[in-house]
Amino acid sequence: MTVEQFATRHIGPGPDDERRMLDIVGHDSIDELMDAAIPEVIRWHGTLDLPDPATEAETIAELRALAARNTVAVSMIGLGYHGTHTPAVIRRNVLEDPAWYTAYTPYQPEISQGRLEALLNFQTMVTDLTGLATANASMLDEGTAAAEAMTLARRASKSKSSVYVVDADALPQTIAVITSRAEPLGIDVRVLDVERDELPADFFGVHLQYPGASGAVRDHAGLVEAAHAVGALVTVAADLLALTLLRAPGEIGADIAAGTTQRFGVPMGFGGPHAGYLAVRSGLERMLPGRLVGVSRDADGNPAYRLALQTREQHIRREKATSNICTAQVLLAVMAGMYAVYHGPDGLRDIATRTHAMAARLAAGLRAGGVPVADVAFFDTVTARVPGQAARVVEAAAQRGVNLRLVDADQVGMSCDETTTEAHLQEVWAAFGVPAVDGPVDAALPAALTRGSDFLTHPVFRSHHSETAMLRYLRRLSDFDYALDRGMIPLGSCTMKLNATTEMEPVSWAEFANIHPFAPDSQTVGYREMIGQLESWLAEVTGYDAVSVQPNAGSQGELAGLLAIRAYHASRGETHRDVCLIPSSAHGTNAASAVMAGMRVVVVACDADGNVDLVDLDAKIDKHRDALAAIMVTYPSTHGVYETGIASLCAKVHDAGGQVYVDGANLNALVGFAKPGKFGADVSHLNLHKTFCIPHGGGGPGVGPVAVRAHLAPFLPGDPLGAHVDSTPAISAAKYGSAGILPIPWAYLRMMGAEGLARATGVAVLAANYVAARLRGHFPVLYAGNKGLVAHECILDLRPLTKATGVSVDDVAKRLIDYGFHAPTMSFPVAGTLMVEPTESEDLAELDRFCDAMIAIRAEIEQVASGQWPAGDNPLTNAPHTAAMVSGDEWSHAYPRSVGAYPAGVDRAGKYWPPVRRIDGAYGDRNLVCSCPSPEAFED
Amino acid sequence: MTVEQFATRHIGPGPDDERRMLDIVGHDSIDELMDAAIPEVIRWHGTLDLPDPATEAETIAELRALAARNTVAVSMIGLGYHGTHTPAVIRRNVLEDPAWYTAYTPYQPEISQGRLEALLNFQTMVTDLTGLATANASMLDEGTAAAEAMTLARRASKSKSSVYVVDADALPQTIAVITSRAEPLGIDVRVLDVERDELPADFFGVHLQYPGASGAVRDHAGLVEAAHAVGALVTVAADLLALTLLRAPGEIGADIAAGTTQRFGVPMGFGGPHAGYLAVRSGLERMLPGRLVGVSRDADGNPAYRLALQTREQHIRREKATSNICTAQVLLAVMAGMYAVYHGPDGLRDIATRTHAMAARLAAGLRAGGVPVADVAFFDTVTARVPGQAARVVEAAAQRGVNLRLVDADQVGMSCDETTTEAHLQEVWAAFGVPAVDGPVDAALPAALTRGSDFLTHPVFRSHHSETAMLRYLRRLSDFDYALDRGMIPLGSCTMKLNATTEMEPVSWAEFANIHPFAPDSQTVGYREMIGQLESWLAEVTGYDAVSVQPNAGSQGELAGLLAIRAYHASRGETHRDVCLIPSSAHGTNAASAVMAGMRVVVVACDADGNVDLVDLDAKIDKHRDALAAIMVTYPSTHGVYETGIASLCAKVHDAGGQVYVDGANLNALVGFAKPGKFGADVSHLNLHKTFCIPHGGGGPGVGPVAVRAHLAPFLPGDPLGAHVDSTPAISAAKYGSAGILPIPWAYLRMMGAEGLARATGVAVLAANYVAARLRGHFPVLYAGNKGLVAHECILDLRPLTKATGVSVDDVAKRLIDYGFHAPTMSFPVAGTLMVEPTESEDLAELDRFCDAMIAIRAEIEQVASGQWPAGDNPLTNAPHTAAMVSGDEWSHAYPRSVGAYPAGVDRAGKYWPPVRRIDGAYGDRNLVCSCPSPEAFED
Repeated sequence: MTVEQFATRHIGPGPDDERRMLDIVGHDSIDELMDAAIPEVIRWHGTLDLPDPATEAETIAELRALAARNTVAVSMIGLGYHGTHTPAVIRRNVLEDPAWYTAYTPYQPEISQGRLEALLNFQTMVTDLTGLATANASMLDEGTAAAEAMTLARRASKSKSSVYVVDADALPQTIAVITSRAEPLGIDVRVLDVERDELPADFFGVHLQYPGASGAVRDHAGLVEAAHAVGALVTVAADLLALTLLRAPGEIGADIAAGTTQRFGVPMGFGGPHAGYLAVRSGLERMLPGRLVGVSRDADGNPAYRLALQTREQHIRREKATSNICTAQVLLAVMAGMYAVYHGPDGLRDIATRTHAMAARLAAGLRAGGVPVADVAFFDTVTARVPGQAARVVEAAAQRGVNLRLVDADQVGMSCDETTTEAHLQEVWAAFGVPAVDGPVDAALPAALTRGSDFLTHPVFRSHHSETAMLRYLRRLSDFDYALDRGMIPLGSCTMKLNATTEMEPVSWAEFANIHPFAPDSQTVGYREMIGQLESWLAEVTGYDAVSVQPNAGSQGELAGLLAIRAYHASRGETHRDVCLIPSSAHGTNAASAVMAGMRVVVVACDADGNVDLVDLDAKIDKHRDALAAIMVTYPSTHGVYETGIASLCAKVHDAGGQVYVDGANLNALVGFAKPGKFGADVSHLNLHKTFCIPHGGGGPGVGPVAVRAHLAPFLPGDPLGAHVDSTPAISAAKYGSAGILPIPWAYLRMMGAEGLARATGVAVLAANYVAARLRGHFPVLYAGNKGLVAHECILDLRPLTKATGVSVDDVAKRLIDYGFHAPTMSFPVAGTLMVEPTESEDLAELDRFCDAMIAIRAEIEQVASGQWPAGDNPLTNAPHTAAMVSGDEWSHAYPRSVGAYPAGVDRAGKYWPPVRRIDGAYGDRNLVCSCPSPEAFED
Repeated sequence: MTVEQFATRHIGPGPDDERRMLDIVGHDSIDELMDAAIPEVIRWHGTLDLPDPATEAETIAELRALAARNTVAVSMIGLGYHGTHTPAVIRRNVLEDPAWYTAYTPYQPEISQGRLEALLNFQTMVTDLTGLATANASMLDEGTAAAEAMTLARRASKSKSSVYVVDADALPQTIAVITSRAEPLGIDVRVLDVERDELPADFFGVHLQYPGASGAVRDHAGLVEAAHAVGALVTVAADLLALTLLRAPGEIGADIAAGTTQRFGVPMGFGGPHAGYLAVRSGLERMLPGRLVGVSRDADGNPAYRLALQTREQHIRREKATSNICTAQVLLAVMAGMYAVYHGPDGLRDIATRTHAMAARLAAGLRAGGVPVADVAFFDTVTARVPGQAARVVEAAAQRGVNLRLVDADQVGMSCDETTTEAHLQEVWAAFGVPAVDGPVDAALPAALTRGSDFLTHPVFRSHHSETAMLRYLRRLSDFDYALDRGMIPLGSCTMKLNATTEMEPVSWAEFANIHPFAPDSQTVGYREMIGQLESWLAEVTGYDAVSVQPNAGSQGELAGLLAIRAYHASRGETHRDVCLIPSSAHGTNAASAVMAGMRVVVVACDADGNVDLVDLDAKIDKHRDALAAIMVTYPSTHGVYETGIASLCAKVHDAGGQVYVDGANLNALVGFAKPGKFGADVSHLNLHKTFCIPHGGGGPGVGPVAVRAHLAPFLPGDPLGAHVDSTPAISAAKYGSAGILPIPWAYLRMMGAEGLARATGVAVLAANYVAARLRGHFPVLYAGNKGLVAHECILDLRPLTKATGVSVDDVAKRLIDYGFHAPTMSFPVAGTLMVEPTESEDLAELDRFCDAMIAIRAEIEQVASGQWPAGDNPLTNAPHTAAMVSGDEWSHAYPRSVGAYPAGVDRAGKYWPPVRRIDGAYGDRNLVCSCPSPEAFED
């Protein structure tokens, strides 16, 4: 390979490294290693049918050509997607900054204080604006947030009714997602004109849109009262920008608020990603799905942030869960929160006021020209009546570069936003054939709903309004964090590999960023061609026949896959098939997804080697043969092993009439060497943020396409604006989900080509086996497959050491911070272990640095075992060490400062210092605080 | 102002801050303050005639429209400007990363180790490739590097001759710059065909191009011998990429090598900026102009980098100097060095080999088609003969999207580079009307000049070849440094203000980045319109009639301005006017520039208040009345004071027939309130990297336009490809200098508008007076003007304290690092003082943090004075404190660790730690090492 070939940049080890690693592992070549590791029964020996790899420059040129086939129009379509000015300082120093976008989910809070603070800002922004007590750290989009609100309401409501009332003026895509989610759960969704239609006698919840899709701002006080009277919970899907001027949902009695923060500086991206939000009144906070950041304290008693109530999250409630979401939209939530920090309350109010003034002027102009506009209070959106002429008006506006909303044959909708200018209004008036008007007009906000309460009163929203101050605040926070730009993040099952700059750059281009998901097809030719290619390449890589990129997280891909199985059985008249077999080793999300898809979970045992117990499988199949809907397995297994029984497992399930779901979480161990769609599976979801290089963003965005064999293709997700929920459900609010970041996997596949992808897989497996080989003498390596080889990750067993010395897996994980590492995955899939996935992007120097650190830690544990260091006061239990601690005027520990600060081999000059000591998570869970603490809390 | 107005983002203090600051300063409003501060005699009361301020979004849209009027063609023009692939990881994490671009020149080496290491990589790259002993840390471009080589040769040569021989195959713009520089110095430039023409009997130096502009690679061995025989020095202007395959200049006897590193990943930018280079053989290193990074050691004896031989630099040799350059091209040198780090020796050789193969194929195709190609060895450039058809061929190629070089009516030049593709060759062949050919051809490199020696053998060039490794290396280095993204850099006379992201973003756009400086006018319409607007706006701001943006540093602007004065006098038959009056307070560069412009420097005294002594001025004018060419003054003065005598000074000089040069370094104190061109000056240079927001880049790029009144306009810099050196000299190699970064000041002016600019000036003056008011009780503030007010900076006098306690200005500067600050300017313009310029971009919180730190330091000095801390062992003399020091196992200092590490009020979690302790500069100067030290040097 030459310097121009991207694969040489993506893959860490060069030829010399590779030779050395093979020597240690004891194989002659990567091919030979892979032959030994992968069971022949699943091995695929072809070459992927992908275009020859392009260089980085060629790839950018091709993406530029695709981008040029999109048209960036002025969007006034609205419906929850609005034009917005991303402050350049935020774009460059968050969205385009690897310190933010290569970070992992903040499970190791001591090295994640920056993004945790940023998320706390986001939560505070949401709670302040919605007037509710607690908000989580973001949802996937407004549609799924609304669906989660529904299931939360069902769980919390005292009503036994299965009826959920939905405002007919809700966003149509929200109604589609809610309906799709409701059906398998037996929830009866009733879409009503909540002002005119009669309410059902009993219902467990109601969903209101505020302002409505039509633009109307209605006073829902009576309805809220009626709902509460029957024990129903009220969800208000509210526009946060409007809430700077309108009474907050919490002030009008809402129990739950849901929505999107897209217009807070996050580009539309043809549908996503952006951060949805979900907030609840006091009393419901412990039912909130998703991730919740809270304040706790560290070992010195200083305030410190971490994920609150994390146990329900990390060890998800399996089949008892009412939600399967794992990923949030952290990177986008950070952007939205920072948008609020940068503008502050006055700035946001100013933006909202200007936006409203534009809408008011637009309406006034139309009325003056004789076009009737719905006579309601509104914020940013107006609906005009042009009987029989709506399509013509929308087309005329499009010709003038402005997209309007075609409501129906007689009505046109128009939404203003912070990017709306006088020139845009004039184009719209011209499209309607009315003359332009001058001058300001009266506001059309309802007096009764004018906001009286303050918001964003915390100093953080009042201190960073100059660009210099903002830049420094962003730098300060990102410096707190450890991300891939500092070193290895060897997280098993998470595949923290390179997110190449060339893959990332197109995300910022206007032609990808500034496209409304409901823009006319003629304006999205390049986007759809790019997505079509990506779907076909993913199908080729996985051996499936069809792919949908709609699911905007792995969990959503699981749900989509299971719903496809469900619909498939139904289409064959086998609606009784509702049992989903799940091995005990599975990720908890699998079980939660199965329940959400209306299935019953039956657990299959694993044997001592961690493999699915085929005897128990037979027994379970026998027992549930007629009801068998599916089995969900992960391959390679969550234990990081290529199980040899997989083909036989697939055959058994198929024989019983079931479908096989292979969780694609570990696809990085298969690409180019095995195809799930060819070795027996019917459906998989992929994690584009794992194998296909979308950065983790500190805990999202994720993208989880679903891939199926041909017989399931008719049941893939449909267009949320036209979904028929029985067969093609709406999984996300937008047809292509988080389309805005799909250039990333597209570029990765385009640049790697067949050979590069296979080499990446081989090097990933080599690296895991190299780590296993180097560390086996120091820590037992659990589980192995053929010839003692692991797949792409290995599990280090700490339990014997913990038993002997009291040094826990936590202590080792925190001590790794002192050595300059992010910990591997802790206690998954086996409690008391560390799971290490090095990936192909780490070079030998970094792999060795990690192995050396683990070996040094093993020696430290020995010093505890030997009694040289007391069990309660040693560098492990005291880890991580902050600079403040090791430079304190007093030092009374049993080991010298230098051992705490700079254990063997740590680079002194470039040392990464965590900003806080070990965090007491339980304290924070007992004393739940989930918004910004006062500055006084940080005083010494 | 609203949230949309950029001025509110650029200017740090908001209305509340402003009120508080005015209270302390004792004025009611900024207007009233400015009325008090600025002498009425220069005060201008109008409103700048600039377009109404645009929002950030509008500005980007306008620049997009301008960019769209440029055409990005494939450039095969060559002549030292080549297409190159900027590795995306370097673009994003250097060029687009504020941690790199907002840094200052590394005068405080303890907080600049990252960019110093990067520059050492650059120097090592240049010395390795050129085969010479020592290279400096970059030059402004190849033309000025060649001119500096000439003056260096003159100083070093034993020959008394004034003749300098220049290879006729040198780059034409280099010949122009050399000639322009030579003329005022009395150097006789002879442009000769060095292979055929007879050499002069005596000469002090010779300039060779290798490969030549025609592409020819010639063996200059005989010529080198002949030159050395007469005591002349040999400069080889060499292409670094070619040197990966060709014998190094040092190996063929060159004394000096000069050139450009543009093609090492730095976009052409319509001429710049990029890093020129200059390298010398052993024995000449102490004569190297510009900046030189060297290795020394810190207080712990660890290796540490700093600017070597800095005294000649900081305290420039005034009228004895042979060079006036201050600024390097650090940001671009970092990029070029990192390009070499990322590709390594094998990668560079691979790129060179491919480039050569393309050129060889191009030549073979032309020959096969019957087009004669010069029968010489070549690397990347070939010249074809098409008698009478050259213009037609060039035009045909342009129509096909490829720019070729029109050498003359009969010859066409073509250069290949790493971006050249098969498709490009085919377009060229088609333009010539010859058929395409297939397959590889023999190399056309001269066997006798094939490189045999190794290069880039240091591990740094072999360790960071994956993108992950590169990203981490860049992060590691930038983390070492303190830049504006961490906090205030209150450097007097350097105006370290916000470099807004919106100003920076367009620099990366292809339509600005990828334009050759000699592209046809039809392809640069947008660029030239943008530059024209910028020049006219700068003229409006300064009150001059004409502006040239060609000078690519302030020093070059000075030279251009003085040459304009010289040419003006000559045009009036007053060539005898050659005396330049310079006040003793002037920046040393002024005197050096005057000498370079062929003038004699006469120093004018300053009075006790730091103002120009008008009595002495009268005396000097009287003495030199007939010979008086000019006076150079800085306004406000280098003491940071609005001198009231300025108008009278101008009148006196004019009366004597002299011209008035006002150094624009302190223009940030004048914009909107006074115009040099209106209060008596004839010419100024501006520093776009000070007042107009081009970032300092860690020590360049700078841009120093020259602005003149109408009578000097005919003598502004000319086109280097068509310069008539007597009147319109070539100051830089490209007509518009560093055109690629001119969108930055354009955007600044466009967004600020008249009101914003004036407000910025007012707030800058307010901030300086606020600092003076807060600190006056703790440190004497030297110099003040009207009503005790300073202008935009203030000088704190440390001398009494130093005398009393031994605590030096250095100690205070280094102690400020412990408090989280970059030091103010040290010992300029007055030894033993600190000059503080806060600028308008710092908000009150940061100003107060600085004042609080200075007051706390004053109290620390008191503890030394009182004997509480020994003079030799206190937090000041030991500053800066590293984390390693304060966490050391031993601590034997007279104060606790916490005082060293976290002095009053320092944020513990976000503390910036310097990577090294105080550096011993003198040690490094005695033991000069200016390339990368071995890794073993860093072992404990």
